[in-house]
Amino acid sequence: MTHTASPTDAAYVAVDWGTSSFRLWLIGRDETVLAERRSGEGMTTAARTGFAAVLQSHLAAISAPEDLPVLICGMAGAKQGWVEAGYLDTPAALSAIPAAAVRVPGVAADIRILPGLAQRDSAAPDVMRGEETQLLGAAAELGNGDHLVCMPGTHSKWVRLSAGKVEGFSTFMTGELFDAIAKNTILSHAVADAGAIAPDNAAFRAAVTRMVANPALATSQMFSVRAGSLIAGLSSDDAKARLSGTLIGLEIAGALSLAAKDTPVTLIASGSLGMLYEQALAAAGLAPTVIDADTAVRHGLAAGAKALWSL
Amino acid sequence: MTHTASPTDAAYVAVDWGTSSFRLWLIGRDETVLAERRSGEGMTTAARTGFAAVLQSHLAAISAPEDLPVLICGMAGAKQGWVEAGYLDTPAALSAIPAAAVRVPGVAADIRILPGLAQRDSAAPDVMRGEETQLLGAAAELGNGDHLVCMPGTHSKWVRLSAGKVEGFSTFMTGELFDAIAKNTILSHAVADAGAIAPDNAAFRAAVTRMVANPALATSQMFSVRAGSLIAGLSSDDAKARLSGTLIGLEIAGALSLAAKDTPVTLIASGSLGMLYEQALAAAGLAPTVIDADTAVRHGLAAGAKALWSL
Repeated sequence: MTHTASPTDAAYVAVDWGTSSFRLWLIGRDETVLAERRSGEGMTTAARTGFAAVLQSHLAAISAPEDLPVLICGMAGAKQGWVEAGYLDTPAALSAIPAAAVRVPGVAADIRILPGLAQRDSAAPDVMRGEETQLLGAAAELGNGDHLVCMPGTHSKWVRLSAGKVEGFSTFMTGELFDAIAKNTILSHAVADAGAIAPDNAAFRAAVTRMVANPALATSQMFSVRAGSLIAGLSSDDAKARLSGTLIGLEIAGALSLAAKDTPVTLIASGSLGMLYEQALAAAGLAPTVIDADTAVRHGLAAGAKALWSL
Repeated sequence: MTHTASPTDAAYVAVDWGTSSFRLWLIGRDETVLAERRSGEGMTTAARTGFAAVLQSHLAAISAPEDLPVLICGMAGAKQGWVEAGYLDTPAALSAIPAAAVRVPGVAADIRILPGLAQRDSAAPDVMRGEETQLLGAAAELGNGDHLVCMPGTHSKWVRLSAGKVEGFSTFMTGELFDAIAKNTILSHAVADAGAIAPDNAAFRAAVTRMVANPALATSQMFSVRAGSLIAGLSSDDAKARLSGTLIGLEIAGALSLAAKDTPVTLIASGSLGMLYEQALAAAGLAPTVIDADTAVRHGLAAGAKALWSL
């Protein structure tokens, strides 16, 4: 998708470079999006074909001026990425993230990669890479005070934010566990042929509610998906909804256990996953503020670019 | 393994026929084991090669008299097994199990398969097949009163027993989840090349203790296995122990949440898995009575044979 505005208005290039996805925006002096590129050339692909070449091909496709600065967040900064951008340790002020960006050496243009965050806690070591930029982008909308921020996905992140500082965070393997369990365990029979989870699925909501009430029964509730299909005629759609609700409900119960009661909850998400989490949070009695994840990461990169290049 | 006692002393044949294992004992009039057979011809194999043929080959190998009655428990009674033996619904008296055995039709010998147990509860539907016979075998040793009985495995069972009656039970997918997660998620890198979990592994005990204290953090503790290996030098042995302790600790927390405080706990298990669960239960502050699983199932089949054939 390429807009018609002249690339000569361009101020910088913003890139969200994940494990399996690549997104690039050409941003104008007035902060408008002049051009956008999306592809599947994430870290995994680019580690084979070359990060510089992937970036160059997308810049050429939108005729970006050669001397534009480029700010990147995400897995391009991992050890297996382009240039390792390390981690800021928690507690970490979001405003400290841009200055910790690492410059890509050996190229003429000013290309920088933002760092991730690390929680060096022996009982709960944790890392994130990419989500810190979403947080930075959401910071203005969140304002000061205490916040509990949920960023769902393959590895869902829940962040305890206080006055613009990340006090701590927890990664829940929800999305990856759902896939591994649905594909590689006895539950695969029960969930085979299930469609997408309907927004008003009662089995999903009931599973979330049960996990918030008694999270210790998580792996027993999972087996009940199998037993339910064996002796109680549980449909594959409801089986899938029940497994998903169990994992998401367990995640919500865990995140709430680490935050002060009544801390306002913000959901940074997009699309069908965002809607599913809105349903789950409602079943858990929560009414989150919702911020679009795509907008948040772009705003985070904009905040970083402004801090680094006084744009 | 074949003993030298004459098969003419034989009273009946006992068979524990699981998903992937087959065990047969020739039992004498004085209840001694005259001969024993073990093989990998579980339900999965026998469903292809024929249940009658598998049983016959083992009976021939120990020269068992042709007219001996045979009592079978386990997956041979599943829908995909030899003859479906159905379920007894909870609450179920253990003493009612033998009379519910189903006779294999079309054969001269008196061959019967014991039923499983089903819990028809819409919030926690559950089934077991084989473990009910271990319970029956442990019943004399347990005596009356309330008991919480743990039978660990691929699908661990925890049974709430009161005066010889199964009030309810819960299956935790612990063993299967461990395999699926260790093989098919990002944790596979962290646990690759790990050896067996040492009996005094501190990472295992710490993970169990954390789950008993806050089970809601289960899937976050799983991700901490990855993060720990990334930023805190967690060894593969400790990574594996931490994943195992998290899943077993979650199971223990769940089972305890359903029983009255201070209900005595019995562990029916064998071998290295039994030792691992003893460690885990100790870390959770429990000192279980331990009953050998092999002996329990044989005693259960003996109790069934006595009830059915007045031996």
